[in-house]
Order: sequence, then C-alpha cells, then structure tokens
Amino acid sequence: MEKGSEAILGVDIGGTKLAVAIEVAGERRLRKEPIPGDGSPERVIDRIIELTDELRGEAVLRAAGISIGGPLDHRTGHVINFPHLPGWTDIPLATILADRLQIPTALDNDANLGALAEYHHAVANNLSDPDLPFVYLTLSTGIGGGVIVDGKLLHGVRTGAGELGHITVAPDGPLCPCGNRGCLERMASGTHIAGRARQMAGADPAGAAWMIGEAGGEVDQITAKRVVAGYRAGDPLATMIWLEAIESLAIGLGSIIHVLAPGTIILGGGLSLAADALLDPLRDALKKYVFYVRLDMIEVRTAGLGHDSALVGALICGGTRSGADT
Amino acid sequence: MEKGSEAILGVDIGGTKLAVAIEVAGERRLRKEPIPGDGSPERVIDRIIELTDELRGEAVLRAAGISIGGPLDHRTGHVINFPHLPGWTDIPLATILADRLQIPTALDNDANLGALAEYHHAVANNLSDPDLPFVYLTLSTGIGGGVIVDGKLLHGVRTGAGELGHITVAPDGPLCPCGNRGCLERMASGTHIAGRARQMAGADPAGAAWMIGEAGGEVDQITAKRVVAGYRAGDPLATMIWLEAIESLAIGLGSIIHVLAPGTIILGGGLSLAADALLDPLRDALKKYVFYVRLDMIEVRTAGLGHDSALVGALICGGTRSGADT
Repeated sequence: MEKGSEAILGVDIGGTKLAVAIEVAGERRLRKEPIPGDGSPERVIDRIIELTDELRGEAVLRAAGISIGGPLDHRTGHVINFPHLPGWTDIPLATILADRLQIPTALDNDANLGALAEYHHAVANNLSDPDLPFVYLTLSTGIGGGVIVDGKLLHGVRTGAGELGHITVAPDGPLCPCGNRGCLERMASGTHIAGRARQMAGADPAGAAWMIGEAGGEVDQITAKRVVAGYRAGDPLATMIWLEAIESLAIGLGSIIHVLAPGTIILGGGLSLAADALLDPLRDALKKYVFYVRLDMIEVRTAGLGHDSALVGALICGGTRSGADT
Repeated sequence: MEKGSEAILGVDIGGTKLAVAIEVAGERRLRKEPIPGDGSPERVIDRIIELTDELRGEAVLRAAGISIGGPLDHRTGHVINFPHLPGWTDIPLATILADRLQIPTALDNDANLGALAEYHHAVANNLSDPDLPFVYLTLSTGIGGGVIVDGKLLHGVRTGAGELGHITVAPDGPLCPCGNRGCLERMASGTHIAGRARQMAGADPAGAAWMIGEAGGEVDQITAKRVVAGYRAGDPLATMIWLEAIESLAIGLGSIIHVLAPGTIILGGGLSLAADALLDPLRDALKKYVFYVRLDMIEVRTAGLGHDSALVGALICGGTRSGADT
C-alpha cells in the first residue's frame, strides 16, 4: 500500500466470527477471527477499530460498509436486534463507527450485501442484462435473500425487502419460529432438511438405514449434506426428502418470479454447493409453478463467490458511500 | 385547446371497450366506445387514428402511451397475445402507431399502467414515502398487478413482473387456467368467489338460502357482490366464503411483502369497492403471515382512481416518453 492511498473498510459481524477487510488500490487485506471476548457491542466495536488500524497501514480510509445478520434499519444505521450476541439491541452501529473512524459508514444485512456482491460479480462476468431484477437466496441453516433492481439493493420499509425465507409455501405446514406456518425456510433450509430426515429415521430406522449408516449409526448425526449424498446414491427416503425441499423452493421461487420476473436468480449458502443435485430438479419443479412469466429467460444458477460474499458486499457498499470506485 | 399546444395521447384497448384520451395544457378529452367492427388489429388501429384526429384539434401530438390487457413486451412494443379479440397475436402495436402518428409510442399492460396511475395519484395526495416500493393489485374477474420501484414501473423479463395473480397461495388447491394450482387469482378473484358460492349453493341449497334468495332464486345469479352483501348481513356461508378469499389474499400479499417490503399496497378492481368488508379482515389476516417485515409501516388501502386508471396510466406513460410533464 502506498502512503496516502485511499482505502475502503468492510466489516462482517457474524454470530461466531468477525471479518474485517481493507481494500486499497485494488489490493484486499483481510482478517478473520472469532468474535472477541463477551461479544458485546463495546468489545466488538473496539476490536473492529484495532483491526482496522492494523490493516490500513498508511492508507487513508474514505468510507466503510458493515454487514450484520439481523433486523436493522439501513437508513439510520441502527442494528435493531442481533440475537446471536449479547447486548445487540437498538445499537446505532453506523453512527458509532462513523464517529470513531471519521468516515461515512453504511450498514446493511448480510443477505443483502451478499446479493450486492453476487450482482457485481455477475456483472463482471457477462451478466446478460444488468438492468433486469436480480435475486439472491442463501440456502443455509436458514434461508435469506436480497433483491437488486436497476443495479441497486431494494430495501423497502425498515430494510424488510428480500426476507425471502418467510414467503409462505405451505399454508397448512409446520409452524416456523417466525410465527407463520410453512415458510420457505421452515420447509427447505438445511436445518429443516436434516430435521425431517432425523424425524423419519427415528420413526422408521429400517427405511432410513442408508442415511443412518452414513451418519455412523447416529440418527442425530444425519445432516442435509448426508440427505444430498443419499439422493445422489439413489436412496429412496433421502430422495423423497430432498425433492420435497426442492418442491418447496420451487413454490417460493415461483412467487418471487411472479412479483419480479428477475433475469437472474443466484442460489448461495451451503446447500448451493450441491449444484448438481439442486439445479436440474429445481428447474424441472419450477415448470409446474410458472406459466405467465418466461421461465426460459430466467437464469437460475449457483453463487460465484464463496463464504466472503457479505464482506465483499460490505466493501462495495462502503465504496458506493465514499463515491470511490471499488 | 390552443392551436399548436403540445398534447399526449393515451389509449386503452379492452376486450369490449376502446378508450382514447388526449391531454393538452392540463385539459383531458376522452372518448369511450365499444370495440369497433370485428375487433381486428387493423380495424382497432384505424379507429384509434380517427378518434385521435377528432380529439386533438389543433394541438400537436408529442407522444402516446397504449394500454392493453395481455402478454406483451414493453421494450419492443409488441403485443404477444390479446386473447379477447381476434388476430391479436404478435402485433408490433407501438411501432405501427408510432409510424402512423409520427410520435414516440410506448406500450404496457393495463395492470402496470393502472399501478402507474395510482402511484402518481398517491404521490399527488401525500404518499408518505414515494421512494418505497409500491404495489397495486386489481381484484376483479381476475387478479392482476403492477409494482413501482423508485417511482418507475418494474417490468422484469418480457414485462412479466407484477403477475401477482399467479403467486401460489394453496399448493394443493384447484387447478388454475394458467396451469399452476392454487394461484391467488384462482382462490380470491371475483370469478372464483362467485364460483365457490354457486358450487356450495348447488350442494347445499338450504345452507345457501340467503344468497340464493338475494340472487332471485337462481344459483347461477350468485355473484361475488352478493357474497359480500351476505358477509355484511352476517350470513354464515357467505361469511365463510368471503373470509376464505381474504385469507388467500393475505397469503399472497404476505409473499409480496416478504419480497418487496412495500410502503403502500393499493387494491383496485371491482372487489375493492367493498372497502369496508375488505380492509379490516385483510389487515387482521396479514398478521398471521408477516412477522419479519414491519406490517404497521405498510399502508394497505383501496384505489383512488376508478375504471380509467389504465387510461390515465397510458397518458402518464406517454408523457414520460415525450419528456413532457403531464
């Protein structure tokens, strides 16, 4: 880094990990570590400042983007609640960091910033029409999402847009922790897929022999990954559970498609690593739910960036705030 | 109209009616009549030109906006198919009218242009935050919709955004003519509400005595309007049918809310005239489906414009095309 070069700060605050990155003159410096100390806002903010000072060297910080995985208000920069760490209720995080760092600071949630990062990555890699709506879903322990319209994140009231995991896909389905029944997340997240497999294995160990064997004989060691492995191996029960989850995903995506008619849908998160098991059955299932929007013109594919997408999105978001081109 | 004043043309082509309007210097001149002759594209286009010549007087046309109620591509100005009239398949309508009138001509569907008109009407009447996403639904024989983001219509691939009637609200529900099951339109349109009431009245005339009485003893004269009247009068069967439709509407709106987190949802079309019977039960029902978006910050209300909203939207759309302020 040259002395006096202009730098952007990106921060991703997770339930267990803290990641801080500085981007300066096309170079990216990155630090990832466990959440420090008691995980309180004071402790985490102090550590963000320390890491920033270490990483920036002689560069001049121009702006910062912060990612966190909970309800927030991107307009005011308040974290409404981050339930994974203690004391994170109604914290004016963007203002605190802007004051301490003396730079414009933007706050957004991890799924939105993941969407922004994936969008920029797709645009840089020949996205056919960057002006069309763009949808990003993380398929992980939960299901989150983000929506880009005209190249910008869609936020809606209190940063509520893109809560794609809570679209209803089974009105008579099981209760979701959110309070609704049959949310997409409740039917198709990794947590749900594993839970359903464990439940069925408990009820019928003989029928679930393949998955139980893969899990070393322990029903509670059956994971979504093992369900996917069972689908690939042709195990009937694993196949049923996996295809049911894909059906729910198709119903949810169908609703999203009828609202936005996006040009591109990107699937990220752990489950998207099983692209071979996911994309073909999903595309087939979508044909049952979408007729009045041109499905053949919608690209459905897996994410181009890995675990760092929210951090990359934080850097992009910070860069937008500074007026600089990151 | 002054000689040489600049005018915008708006046209709404319906299944049975043709409406043509000229807006010049704040004045609006309007003609509505039955679709002429055989309803073929040639005949309808000729009549649009005639009416335009009659209405414009000495004014100079600057641009036109055209509304039609079928699948189309707003980018190319092609009507893909308008099934209500003969011969309307793959018609380059915007190009034909632009050539004959020698003005820029934009084409969009009636629900989108209704949304645009309602949005402009709301902005002119103290919409609290015009930058938030804005959703318009027509609750009529079918259910259509339009979405506004950052003050502009969202179109998506092949003008497919806002197909809100085909969101899945009952995955195991009855087949919709579109090919999917349990679409919002199939569960909550006027056609469906009447159909469900007739079906139940046929199966149990005693239970449906109130509605059959209102319909002059004729089961097939039961309409959605009579179901609403029964709900208002406290008839148990009519109440059940009406509240089931509202439940489906709440599930569909819930999905839309989780995608867009709109600041405003406007309900138009015939069923929205029953605002007293619609809004309170709908707001109650929404509370069962939406938890992670701030429902208390979303305004749900009935349309401010009447039947002419698509025509008004066509004028606004034409005005945007001309660069003029209409």
